[in-house]
Parts: sequence; structure tokens; C-alpha cells
Amino acid sequence: MQLTSEKRRAMPIPMFPCFVTLLVFGFSSLASAETHHLHWEVSYMFASPDCQEKLVMAINGQFPGPTIHAKAGDTVVVELKNSLPTEGVVIHWHGIKQIGTPWADGTALISQCPIKPDETFVYKFQADKAGTYFYHGHYGMQRAAGLYGLLIVDVKEGEKEKIKYDGEINMLLSDWYHQDIYTQMVGLSSKPFRWIGEPQSLLINGGGQFNCSLATNQGINKCNMENMQCAPMVLQVLPNKTYRLRIISTTSLSSLNLAIGNHKMTIVEADGNYVDPFTVDDMDIYSGESYSALITTDQHVSSNHWISVGVRGRQPKTPPALAILSYLNNNSQYQLELPKATPPITPLWNDYAHSKSFSYKILAAKDTPKPPKRADRLIQLLNTQNKIDGFIKWSLNNVSMVLPPTPYLGSLRYSLKGAFDQKKPRDWFGANYNVMKPPINPNTTTGSNLYEIKFNSTVDIILQNANALAENVSEIHPWHLHGHDFWVLGYGEGLFRKKDVSRFNLKNAPLRNTAVIFPYGWTAIRFVADNPGVWAFHCHIEPHLHMGMGVILAEGIELVKEIPKDAISCGKTAKMLMNNHG
Amino acid sequence: MQLTSEKRRAMPIPMFPCFVTLLVFGFSSLASAETHHLHWEVSYMFASPDCQEKLVMAINGQFPGPTIHAKAGDTVVVELKNSLPTEGVVIHWHGIKQIGTPWADGTALISQCPIKPDETFVYKFQADKAGTYFYHGHYGMQRAAGLYGLLIVDVKEGEKEKIKYDGEINMLLSDWYHQDIYTQMVGLSSKPFRWIGEPQSLLINGGGQFNCSLATNQGINKCNMENMQCAPMVLQVLPNKTYRLRIISTTSLSSLNLAIGNHKMTIVEADGNYVDPFTVDDMDIYSGESYSALITTDQHVSSNHWISVGVRGRQPKTPPALAILSYLNNNSQYQLELPKATPPITPLWNDYAHSKSFSYKILAAKDTPKPPKRADRLIQLLNTQNKIDGFIKWSLNNVSMVLPPTPYLGSLRYSLKGAFDQKKPRDWFGANYNVMKPPINPNTTTGSNLYEIKFNSTVDIILQNANALAENVSEIHPWHLHGHDFWVLGYGEGLFRKKDVSRFNLKNAPLRNTAVIFPYGWTAIRFVADNPGVWAFHCHIEPHLHMGMGVILAEGIELVKEIPKDAISCGKTAKMLMNNHG
Repeated sequence: MQLTSEKRRAMPIPMFPCFVTLLVFGFSSLASAETHHLHWEVSYMFASPDCQEKLVMAINGQFPGPTIHAKAGDTVVVELKNSLPTEGVVIHWHGIKQIGTPWADGTALISQCPIKPDETFVYKFQADKAGTYFYHGHYGMQRAAGLYGLLIVDVKEGEKEKIKYDGEINMLLSDWYHQDIYTQMVGLSSKPFRWIGEPQSLLINGGGQFNCSLATNQGINKCNMENMQCAPMVLQVLPNKTYRLRIISTTSLSSLNLAIGNHKMTIVEADGNYVDPFTVDDMDIYSGESYSALITTDQHVSSNHWISVGVRGRQPKTPPALAILSYLNNNSQYQLELPKATPPITPLWNDYAHSKSFSYKILAAKDTPKPPKRADRLIQLLNTQNKIDGFIKWSLNNVSMVLPPTPYLGSLRYSLKGAFDQKKPRDWFGANYNVMKPPINPNTTTGSNLYEIKFNSTVDIILQNANALAENVSEIHPWHLHGHDFWVLGYGEGLFRKKDVSRFNLKNAPLRNTAVIFPYGWTAIRFVADNPGVWAFHCHIEPHLHMGMGVILAEGIELVKEIPKDAISCGKTAKMLMNNHG
Repeated sequence: MQLTSEKRRAMPIPMFPCFVTLLVFGFSSLASAETHHLHWEVSYMFASPDCQEKLVMAINGQFPGPTIHAKAGDTVVVELKNSLPTEGVVIHWHGIKQIGTPWADGTALISQCPIKPDETFVYKFQADKAGTYFYHGHYGMQRAAGLYGLLIVDVKEGEKEKIKYDGEINMLLSDWYHQDIYTQMVGLSSKPFRWIGEPQSLLINGGGQFNCSLATNQGINKCNMENMQCAPMVLQVLPNKTYRLRIISTTSLSSLNLAIGNHKMTIVEADGNYVDPFTVDDMDIYSGESYSALITTDQHVSSNHWISVGVRGRQPKTPPALAILSYLNNNSQYQLELPKATPPITPLWNDYAHSKSFSYKILAAKDTPKPPKRADRLIQLLNTQNKIDGFIKWSLNNVSMVLPPTPYLGSLRYSLKGAFDQKKPRDWFGANYNVMKPPINPNTTTGSNLYEIKFNSTVDIILQNANALAENVSEIHPWHLHGHDFWVLGYGEGLFRKKDVSRFNLKNAPLRNTAVIFPYGWTAIRFVADNPGVWAFHCHIEPHLHMGMGVILAEGIELVKEIPKDAISCGKTAKMLMNNHG
């Protein structure tokens, strides 16, 4: 049995704190089915992930949603019924390439129409590659309402997993706001601007502690440890084994760092791609990323150890999330006391050198495909905070993205006129921009930010960070690309210059689907536009995307097969489909 | 200038409390345009109707929405853009019959598909009859989110208003919850059931005082009177004039009573129909009703007087709403002090004799069309509170209404199979039901509650009240019929019996679109099914409708002209429209 949140919650909990046993070693518990047919229903429910009750978006009454287990090459079919009273919904399968099924990417108004209340949409796609993935809402800010869960893809039946381990532990990390997402969305779109602030809690597999400072220096009394519902999760392990920790971040805002007392971690996978193993005391993880870390349970039998998850990159006002790693002793019992040591303290929030050091260590495992030697096109995307008529936005090359009522996949596939703002976005922002200072003219405009990419061409994108509206502020942005993995060719400080191309890592550039830009820096990625469809590329911070921080990449549209009608039954594509009747 | 909330808010407010001047006497300020073309946008905004901030659903940035002024026979065109981030929306034009335009009735999943975010639907209808109307959301519980406003229809150009008055004052009454409607909806659909409780405030034209007990016996200090935003509205009047107060209730839950210190009211109109004038010290008004009351400003020049609005039928936990009637003195100044007298105390909440006395006084004005002598069909609707698998519901003849994903108007007009539960509801609940006791078997089922009514037939409906789930509880329910006025033929106590037909008032039965049933009583209505379309008939209490308290009447469907595609571009009608295309 793998440790998944739904199992954790379903299990009888014998005593404080809550315990979960890891029983599976080395083998998946899945049957060898080729197609996984799932019936899901999205609805609201009351839940208290951090012992403060609020509405959450649940799937089949579960928060987080059910974990999907598949093998590479399997087909996943999710019949998703929307049982929200008045809202549309979609689900994005983060990290799945959707080869041949771009309409199943689950991006509202990009790949499909929102699913209407009381209607059902069928997502059918192939789990193309073994790895650690997740899924989440991709409409409005529904991800932040709790609409997410895990998608674990094992190697093909009969194929040998390259990584050696005895057991798996999944840790789905998220941040949690007590304010509802409507208030958040309206606040972000208001004048004066209302920032959502820092989250109230961090959650591990949907559970956390609000207003609990256990991992700082105020001790256990501050924490609501008596309430089983939000007591730290206990990961039960056997001594002298190797565990694969699958660590995934679907935070709305927070960048995170995870550390385990007395245990080093060896990073072996990032975003579904094997990496050259390296060992660390703590690891960073940004929203949209996933990692596998191996740990060896080499401590004393009958010991236990804190796991801390803390905030990076923003002055942390949110207490760390905690879990406990508990060893089985010789009497087949687990340590019941809290660990004697204090929880590990994650690095200082603004120790960017530490974060960069971690990111720079991520390099491709051997056997990873190498990037093409050169790119056909270079797109430089300047990330700026701007204003439109006093409303605060994020922009790329001075255009803040808004989505049209007709999904791009349909309007492009059927060449519908007037379905979106046709103004082509620029590949470059000009040489004179000073990325170290607030914008001289902060005013911006909205647009579709739709880049048409030549099919099968190789594209480099330079994500260029800059100073935000306030002096001496430049934020971390984790950018996520749909429909592809990309190679991370390198990072740099300040303004990217042509000569930096010579520094690109073409030898062992890691494949990822999410890459971070550090304050005032740039990150270079390369990908091959070989997947017909319309793909979002955006900052994975939910409020930033809501404020326009994204672009759309369209490639090989003429090769997209007939789109299921349910995916395009809105806007101008609906009108087109109806045109032959009545 | 008429006193409407948007003008009130738009005006410079010279000093405490806020003042509005009535300048128009006897004549409408409207031009004689035949078509009123309006561009509206529904969006969320932050507002503090009772000085507590929350999200409200606004139209063009106004709460309540803009007041529509039209003349009988005019055409109203509202291009409604949905600018909510993820929710559908519709607007119902309460009291407008929608003759020939049933798709413009604005009932989600009954007359039309919800308007999708970022899309626009055009409501085009005739203001068929002079009277006092309003409009409001009719999807989920969006009315309770603040989506409402006034629709005032004056007599035809050149025609003489039967009622004589010198000026008009509009009072749109509502109740106000601080909890968001999602939490309310989910709570009502939860097990255990979570009742929404009593509202925090009552609002007059969108303004009120939270936690203010001015109208009880605790004095002004408890009230936040310094805050102009929610200070009592001041109605400025000239002495020795007659004013038409248009009083409308769009409450979510509360039944109300309105009283004006030192002024009697003469009721002259109910739900857009003239009534035989009668004079009262205070008046009841239920959700969904509208009245015109004439007052004569016969008090001393330079005096002012409290107007109180209190809760009826439920133990009032909500403080009364207040307004001030202020006279112009001989120096052309208005009284600035608060009235010296305490606000009038509205009748005790459970003085049902008082309420019945008021309702029984409402009789048709002469010249009102008389009801047909007899009905072709008698439908008895037993109103019961029930349970389904432990969830609490309201039912009619033991079936709780749920709406299908395809609007009835389309699925019936195009005879689509399988679009809704085809089980026909019953016209009678049986003779053995004891309306004085909780249901012996509280279990119920859901259904479409669709009554197919023969075109042009005359139908009697007996709304039969009963005991709720708890002993000794029977609630007031104001029932509203779409697409028609009906005659209120009479009221009775206990179980309706066939012999009660002989007591029906066929002489001067008032025409209404909303009628109340009193605890443990019945109310008989009669209407002619002469309006092709699909019409909701339901309890106007928002949480009761959400819990299934309604039926659907379908009549003359074959006479409905081609339905605009935008009204049926969802569910099975969308599939039908798309069927002819690849």
C-alpha cells in the first residue's frame, strides 16, 4: 500500500499522532490493466485541512482528489462530472504531454470550453512516460480552492525501474488560504489592488496545522496537536531500506524547501525525467515541480525524525508544515513520541545562493535525449509587473495575457475569424530595458500573447526577470510549459545577452516541464515544437497567472485531428457547429 | 428625479444623514422612446451595504443594479455580458409575462442556458403592463448575492395613470447575509444540514445597518450612524403632497412589515395590478411581492418620521431596517435631526392574524378582469419538508424539484428524448395526509415536477401548507408564478376540501404573480394557461427553492416560435444544434 492522502484519511487511526504503514516494497500494487476508467465528480464540500473549516473543491468527496496510478503507455479515461452549482470546471494533467489529444490538456479557454454544471466531459489520454505527475484545476483560481491530486506513472509492465528503492512515499505539498478564491480573484482585479497575502498554512497531502509554530522555537503547546484531523502526518518506515519520496508542489503562491532531520536526500527525478543523482540536506521545490528523492533509513531502529517544509523567496509569514518519519523497532512497534530533536530549520527565505546552488545541480541523467544543437527561433520574454488604468498586472514583453471566450484550440483549428485579439506578440522587448529598475513607464495593455510556432522547429525561450513595480523587488517565477518537456540550457544574472548563448549547456541539460527564474536573472529553455496543439506557458503561481503572466504557443494546428464537440461547445466554435442547423 | 438607489449613491451627500431630494411631481422623467437598449455587465465587486464589506454581484458596478424605467408597451433590450470569472448567470424579469418571448424569462435551465463567462445574451421583451416590477438572478442562489434591481413600468404614453400622486419613492427591500452564497448553498445541501440562519441585516435600496438596534429600545449609540455609507436613507418630501411609495421585496428569506411613523398607507397596487384601495398603519410584504402605497404628507412642516421595516413569520434575530421621512420646512430646509419619536414597532413576528388580515384586504380594483367561472383542472400541491438519504428537502406532493442540464423550453420544444426525468407529477397528494403533524414517512424523492398544461385551459392550484419536519412548525411560503398573473381565489385553514371551492372569491379576486400560504393553511389561485412557454412556479424564498420547492408548468409549447440559439446552447439542445455538422 502506498501512502496517499485518501488512504491516510480512510484508515483507522489508532492513536495520536496518526499513523500510516508502508507495506509495499518494490512492486506496484496495480493490476496490469491498460486502460484506467475513472468516474469523477467535482463538488464543494466542507473540510478542515488545517483544522479551520472552509469550502474546498473535492473530487468524489475527497480532498486532495484520488491518486491515479498508471503505467507508462496506459490509457487514462476520466469521466469528469461537474457538480458545482453554477461554475464551470476543467482539470489539467500536469506533466502529461497529451500527444494526439491536445483537447484533453484541461486548460479552460485554451484547450477546451469549461465543463458546464451538471455536464460531463471525458478526458482520455495516454500516460506517455513514467514519472511523478499531478493534476489540478485550470480555470479561474480553482487550483487554489483545492482541486488537485496525484498522478503517478510507473515504468511499463515488464520494464525495469532504473531507480532502486524498497518503498514509496508521496508528499503532495500545497499552501492554503482561509479566504475563498472569489474574494481572492476579485481583490487581484480591483483598484486599489488587494494582494492575497501569504497563505495561512502549508499542507502535506492535504493536511497541515494553522497557527502552529512547532517548527520554530515556541514549542508544541502552540499547536493543535490533539486534533487528529490536522496532526502531523506520520510516515512509517522500516530501518535499513531505501525509500523513494515523490515530492510534488501545487502551491498557489509559495516556493518551498523540504528537509528531513538526520536524513540526506538523493535527487533522482525531476518533473518525470531522471536526473544525474545528487545528494542534499534540503531541497527546494517550486509550484508546478515534482521530484523523486531517495532516502535511506540508516538511523537507529525505534527512532523518529521531523520533516519540515518551509517557505522560500518570500518573507515567510506561514509556519512550516511538518511530518514525522517513524522507524519500526525490533518489537514491531513504531515510535509514538514526538521526535526529541527540534524540526530541521529550512534555509533563510532570501538565501538565493542556496536556491541557485540546488537548481544548478539538476542535470540530465545519462541516456537523456540531448537538445538539438541550435534553435530556429529565439523568443525573449521580459517578465514585468505593470499597470493598466491603475490595475496591477503581470506582462510578457509588455502585454498581459487575457483569455478569449472561445478556446484557442478550436478557433485556430477551424480558422475562425475574430475569435481573439490577433495582434502578434513580440519575440523581443528591446535592448534598452533596465531589468534592475522598476519600469520607467509601467503602463501595459492586454492581449492574447499567442505565439504561432513552426511545427517541428526548435525554439529557445529566454525568461527574463526584472524589477517589479516597487524598487528593489524582483520575485521568483516558476514557469510551466504544457504539452512538452524542455531542456533547461542555463541560468544567468541580470540581462540576457546574445553572447550568453555560448554558455548554454548542450551536454547534460536537464529535461523539465517547469523552470524557475530567480530575481533579476534569466533562464534559458529549449524545446522542439513537435506536438500539434495549443499549449499554455505560464507562471505557475496562481495569482500571477490570474494577473496575466502567461503566453500561448500554437504549433502544428493543421495536424490536430477532429476535436471532440464537447471540448468546443462554447463561444464561436459552438456557433460554427450550430451553423448548419435551424 | 426619482429616488433610486443609484442616484442616491451618485449624489453628493452634503452632511449626515444622507439626503435625497424629490424633484419630480406627477410626470415621468423618461423620454417617450419605445425601445430601451441597455448594455449591462455582471461582475463581482466589494461593497459594504451594511458597513460590513463582502463580495456582491453588481451590474455595471452598481448594487443594487440600475433601475429600468419604461412605459407599458415599450420594448426593453438588455445586452447582458457575464463578467463573472467562472460562473454562469441569468436575469429574471419578475412580473413581466414574456408574451411571445418565453426564452427571455431568465430562468436558468428552465427558459435558457446559463450565460457563460465572457459571453453576452440579449434579453428582449415587452413591458406588457404598467406596474412595479423588479429583476433578479435566477441561477443557484445568485439573487442572494445581490443580483437585483428595479423595473418600473409607467402607463402608456398619453394614457392617464389611474392613481393620483405628486411624487414617487422607490423602496427596494432585501435581506443580507455576510456568509457567501457558495457556503450557503453547500450547507443547505450537506448532511448534517446547515441552515443559513437569519440574515445579518435588512437593506432598503441596498443600504442598511448591521448590528444596529436603533429601532428597538437600545438607542442610537449602538448604530454606526457616522458612516454615511450605511446611514439610514432620508426620503425628502414636501408637505401636503401625495406620494406613491413603490415597495418591493427581493429578500432571500425574510417576510417583512413596513410602518411609517404618523403616516397611514393606502395600498393601491399589488404585483403590477391595481387593487381596491385600503388604508393601513403597517403593511406586510413577502419575497417576490411588490406594492404601491400612497402616503399623504399631512404632518407639520419641518417634521421628520421614522420608517421601520421588521421581520415577520420567523423569530426576528435581524434588527429592523430604518429610513427617515423628512419634510421641507418653510425656509426650504429639511429637518436634520433624527426623529424625536422612537421608530414605529412593526407587529409581533408571530401575529399571523395581523398578517392574514392584511392579505385578506387585498382585493381587485374595479375594471380588473374577473376569473373564469370554473377551472378545467385542479392541482393540489402539498408543501412538505422531507428527507432524501438524510438530506433535508422541500417537496410538492412528495417530490423535490431538481433541474436538468438542458433547459426545458428547448428540450420540450424540440421533443428531445431523455432530457429530463419523465415521471409525471401528481395533481393530488391523497386524502389521508395530516397537514397538522410532521410527515409520518419523511422520505421523498427528486423529480422534474413538470406539469404539462393544456393550452388556454383554466387551472386552479391549491397551495396546501403542512407541518414541517419538526413538531409545531409550519412556515410561510410566498409562491411566485412566472409568465402569468393569477387570481387569488381565497385562503383557508387546515386541509383544503372540495367544498371550499364554494367559498372561492369570483367577484373581486385580486390578480397577483405572488401569493403566500400561511402556516397550516391553504391558498387557492386560478390562472389561464394562455402563454406558450415553460414557466417556473416556486417558493420565492431562495434557500427553499434551492432545496427543491418548486414545479414547472409547460403550456402551448408547440406555439413557441424559434428559440434563439444562444438560449439553448447547452446540454442536449446544443448537441441537437450541432448534429448536422461534422
